[in-house]
Amino acid sequence: MTVGEIPFPAIPALAGVKLGAVGAAIKREGRDDILVIELAEGSTAAGVFTRNAFCAAPVTLARQHLASSAGNIRYLVINAGNANACTGEQGLADAKSICQYIADQKGVALDQVLPFSTGVIGELLPVQRILDAMPQALSNLAEDNWLRAARAIMTTDTVPKGAVRSFVYDGQKISVAGIAKGAGMIKPNMATMLAFVATDAPVAAPVLDQLVKEAADLSFNRIVIDGDTSTNDACMLMATGQAAVPAVSACEGELYKALRAAVIEVFVELAQQLVRDGEGATKFIRIAVEGGADQEECAQVAYAIAQSPLVKTAFFASDPNWGRIVAAIGYAGVAGLNPDLVSVYLGDVLIVDKGGRAESYREEAGQEVMSRSDIDITVKLGRGSAEHHVWTTDFSFDYVRINAEYRT
Amino acid sequence: MTVGEIPFPAIPALAGVKLGAVGAAIKREGRDDILVIELAEGSTAAGVFTRNAFCAAPVTLARQHLASSAGNIRYLVINAGNANACTGEQGLADAKSICQYIADQKGVALDQVLPFSTGVIGELLPVQRILDAMPQALSNLAEDNWLRAARAIMTTDTVPKGAVRSFVYDGQKISVAGIAKGAGMIKPNMATMLAFVATDAPVAAPVLDQLVKEAADLSFNRIVIDGDTSTNDACMLMATGQAAVPAVSACEGELYKALRAAVIEVFVELAQQLVRDGEGATKFIRIAVEGGADQEECAQVAYAIAQSPLVKTAFFASDPNWGRIVAAIGYAGVAGLNPDLVSVYLGDVLIVDKGGRAESYREEAGQEVMSRSDIDITVKLGRGSAEHHVWTTDFSFDYVRINAEYRT
Repeated sequence: MTVGEIPFPAIPALAGVKLGAVGAAIKREGRDDILVIELAEGSTAAGVFTRNAFCAAPVTLARQHLASSAGNIRYLVINAGNANACTGEQGLADAKSICQYIADQKGVALDQVLPFSTGVIGELLPVQRILDAMPQALSNLAEDNWLRAARAIMTTDTVPKGAVRSFVYDGQKISVAGIAKGAGMIKPNMATMLAFVATDAPVAAPVLDQLVKEAADLSFNRIVIDGDTSTNDACMLMATGQAAVPAVSACEGELYKALRAAVIEVFVELAQQLVRDGEGATKFIRIAVEGGADQEECAQVAYAIAQSPLVKTAFFASDPNWGRIVAAIGYAGVAGLNPDLVSVYLGDVLIVDKGGRAESYREEAGQEVMSRSDIDITVKLGRGSAEHHVWTTDFSFDYVRINAEYRT
Repeated sequence: MTVGEIPFPAIPALAGVKLGAVGAAIKREGRDDILVIELAEGSTAAGVFTRNAFCAAPVTLARQHLASSAGNIRYLVINAGNANACTGEQGLADAKSICQYIADQKGVALDQVLPFSTGVIGELLPVQRILDAMPQALSNLAEDNWLRAARAIMTTDTVPKGAVRSFVYDGQKISVAGIAKGAGMIKPNMATMLAFVATDAPVAAPVLDQLVKEAADLSFNRIVIDGDTSTNDACMLMATGQAAVPAVSACEGELYKALRAAVIEVFVELAQQLVRDGEGATKFIRIAVEGGADQEECAQVAYAIAQSPLVKTAFFASDPNWGRIVAAIGYAGVAGLNPDLVSVYLGDVLIVDKGGRAESYREEAGQEVMSRSDIDITVKLGRGSAEHHVWTTDFSFDYVRINAEYRT
């Protein structure tokens, strides 16, 4: 079940990107769990990865390959069902051997292939099964394959996730399309999330590198499901250069601006889809904190609210228990916070004014907002003009059920 | 349901302490929800209070009274069912009028009376009902009343909590006895917890002040239920001076050492009882982090594990999903952490060695430990010799149920 609909969009072929999925029974039979993405010659890529100290073997290798190839990537190989994390030297060797297989088959350099994994931590990859399935994945490569690709990378996701935008520059249509998977362990910097977004515009690797960081900060780094940060998160931005427009070699100009806007829209849409399909989610909640002395403290308060189990269970119960929100603001750690200047809105309803229950507030009004599936909370700190916002979900029985049963 | 038994001990009369409980129907009828504690003339008291910026009116007033009376406290008045938090000027006036009533009735100064509240945030106290009930509370004052007192301060607690220790100094028996209530919103610094611990030893207020801080740091500041810190936490240490031993006027000497040990034992026992009766708890978990460069980073790692919903749901499922523990260690934010030096024990079972699954580890061994109700986790960081430990619980369906239904 998701919060609202998450329709998978019709993603047309994006020139220079082919996707091939296949099942290798990594966690269970009868589903695709391998995805290969092929990029046309001359493509560029950049990524943002988890900051978890225990980053997984594929993350380590992908970072190395991106650096040594200077972003000249030709293949991405992703598996679901096994994270290949905390697997030591063997894990690295396994990820490498899968990349090497594709490099050999396709005649590209090893460091032009990037590996990604998502799933259970601490178990070795079934490398042979993956290699055995690889020929079929390579033979399945097709441009019109985004939906199947989105399905192949799912773990606890209940629906496949995709987004697409296009714009016209100088008479040429430019597209940006992507897929992503969540859905637990979601928190800034980052989440057990993988996202693969491509454009057919020609973009220099350093530009992609800056753009993917900026777009991730405005999207995937603003979503919170449970406060956990995984070992495997990765968010890739790729450019095939097949569209007949001038190459974007700097973060400036009309084309860059249009591209940047489209990329950010795709990232934000994918990030919000992850939240809407968060484990056990029944609410989609936007928490905006305004009036901070700086963005950092706004973020602190937003995360304190978004990660409070007491706030999240109140949301699950559609209970306008604003005391829990106020308590979270109070322990967020903003030095010198003056409660008397703090106000809180639930939707358009002022519930907390000058640090206490607003005189105009009536429980029915708060109840009405809380009973919606999409809820906005706005906190005003009364300290300055900085802002930050995050998207999150409630904490439900199903969150516990899903995570208690995950390995069984 | 609690994790293991929490028998209420036989707490004998402690000279100089009388307790009187009564029902004022603050949240619902038919239960005691007011407690008055009377201390003999010449008693001293000291406290540790919440660091939440939105501290409740009674916390503000109790701090003021403790300061202006220099710890010469005669009465404590506690109500359950309403936190009197985020209630602005009216809240302060309400807390004050309750103190004033007792001061007037008993002929003591206003600042010799301390108020405490626990319950729902943001609603005004039913002051008149409380004042109407006060004569009965005062007439109920009795030395042999600890169990009824412990019951009167409960909110979502399922059992009353008490602890007692005694020792002999110079032929005189000295006692330390206390009661506490939890049970949600529990996290260091601090929790919706109230604790009232008294001794019949004569202790100078500055000594009590240092001792209560030290004891709270070793007990209530080490327990984590859900990561939320309440607006109302308070932990009081009181000394009636009725025992015929020399006054403890400095943090040194035999008597002080014996007293300190007994106070810490009482605090730790009460703190652990709060965890065992944590909302929805089915496991009691001790998380020790050793080998850190300093205590601070050990605490960071311990809290990251203790607060991870993914780790907590795995505990609920008795699932030795050590990958989630390792992920939490990795995102705890210890700068320069080398995963290759990290090991993790579940009970006596080495599960993670050199950052990966230990070669000797067998799932059955981890499973056996996880199926217990009391579980020890030990993390070794391999960076130094510092240590920190916390006590926590799992995350269960009942946690969600209790907190989703709390106000209904």
